[in-house]
Amino acid sequence: MNHDLEHTIALLERTPGALDELLRGLPDEWTDRNEGGDSWSPREIVAHLSHAERTDWLPRVRHLLEFGESQPFPPFDRLAQRRQMQGKGISELLVEFAALRAASLDQLRELGLGPSEMERRGMHPALGSVTLGQLLATWATHDLTHLHQIARVMAHQYRDLVGPWSKYLGVLQCNGHSS
Amino acid sequence: MNHDLEHTIALLERTPGALDELLRGLPDEWTDRNEGGDSWSPREIVAHLSHAERTDWLPRVRHLLEFGESQPFPPFDRLAQRRQMQGKGISELLVEFAALRAASLDQLRELGLGPSEMERRGMHPALGSVTLGQLLATWATHDLTHLHQIARVMAHQYRDLVGPWSKYLGVLQCNGHSS
Repeated sequence: MNHDLEHTIALLERTPGALDELLRGLPDEWTDRNEGGDSWSPREIVAHLSHAERTDWLPRVRHLLEFGESQPFPPFDRLAQRRQMQGKGISELLVEFAALRAASLDQLRELGLGPSEMERRGMHPALGSVTLGQLLATWATHDLTHLHQIARVMAHQYRDLVGPWSKYLGVLQCNGHSS
Repeated sequence: MNHDLEHTIALLERTPGALDELLRGLPDEWTDRNEGGDSWSPREIVAHLSHAERTDWLPRVRHLLEFGESQPFPPFDRLAQRRQMQGKGISELLVEFAALRAASLDQLRELGLGPSEMERRGMHPALGSVTLGQLLATWATHDLTHLHQIARVMAHQYRDLVGPWSKYLGVLQCNGHSS
């Protein structure tokens, strides 16, 4: 399967709405609890998606197009949302993410990227040489990683309440690899 | 954490909308592909949720309230959706699931269950004695198991396209425990 930009955009444009339908108006017991310790709540995950939207995805696309492999992407701070989410409820964070994503996709479309650009290369500071197609596919898959994580974090809140059914519920066997 | 029926209903009523926002109008490459072999596509998962709505959740609530532990729940056919989904596209299946879920929740609310009913017991054919609270918590967690699975199945379609980023994407490390 080759990377198809329209398939990637189709997913990217649906994630904010899906998260909004899932999370808006839910009791805090679902949105603000985590998996213990320093793990992330759904509220923090939404804030992380916004932070990635601001500093990671489209900025890296532009960086790759401008510098190629000559200059690595600036590193991404995976914990910056801890500051940015302070005092913000889930509703506000969902609105923020939707606006940021819509703006990113507008800018992405304006770049008018075609199949030949998908092979252009940039330099990841840890992973080395990567293509633009890989970067765009990773953007979409990053959404899915965090949707997967949100489902797991929420299910964790019901771990004890399901009693003997826990062994039939696959999400409760997930070992946290996506945090 | 005790089982709070309002928390469970809050999640149950959001799942159809979240899946609709995520999946409606997506290219078939996202909704109709699986993880290989006999595994499930997102389209099949939505059909499975409808089948469970018809034959599993509210019917088991009623069965428990009527028979207690004296008569086990009828077994649930985990593959019946294979017949029921034939010829139906994802849009039709999403509408069907939303209608079935809304009807289930109307009926659940009409039962007027309170905290004391949550301790009433029924008999699972394999798991043995279970409480009504556990059954209702499992209904919600089953939604999350399949949301988790859908994210994983979709991410699998991009496994090769993300190139070296695959090691950073937790959803691609998930071993399929929720199928």
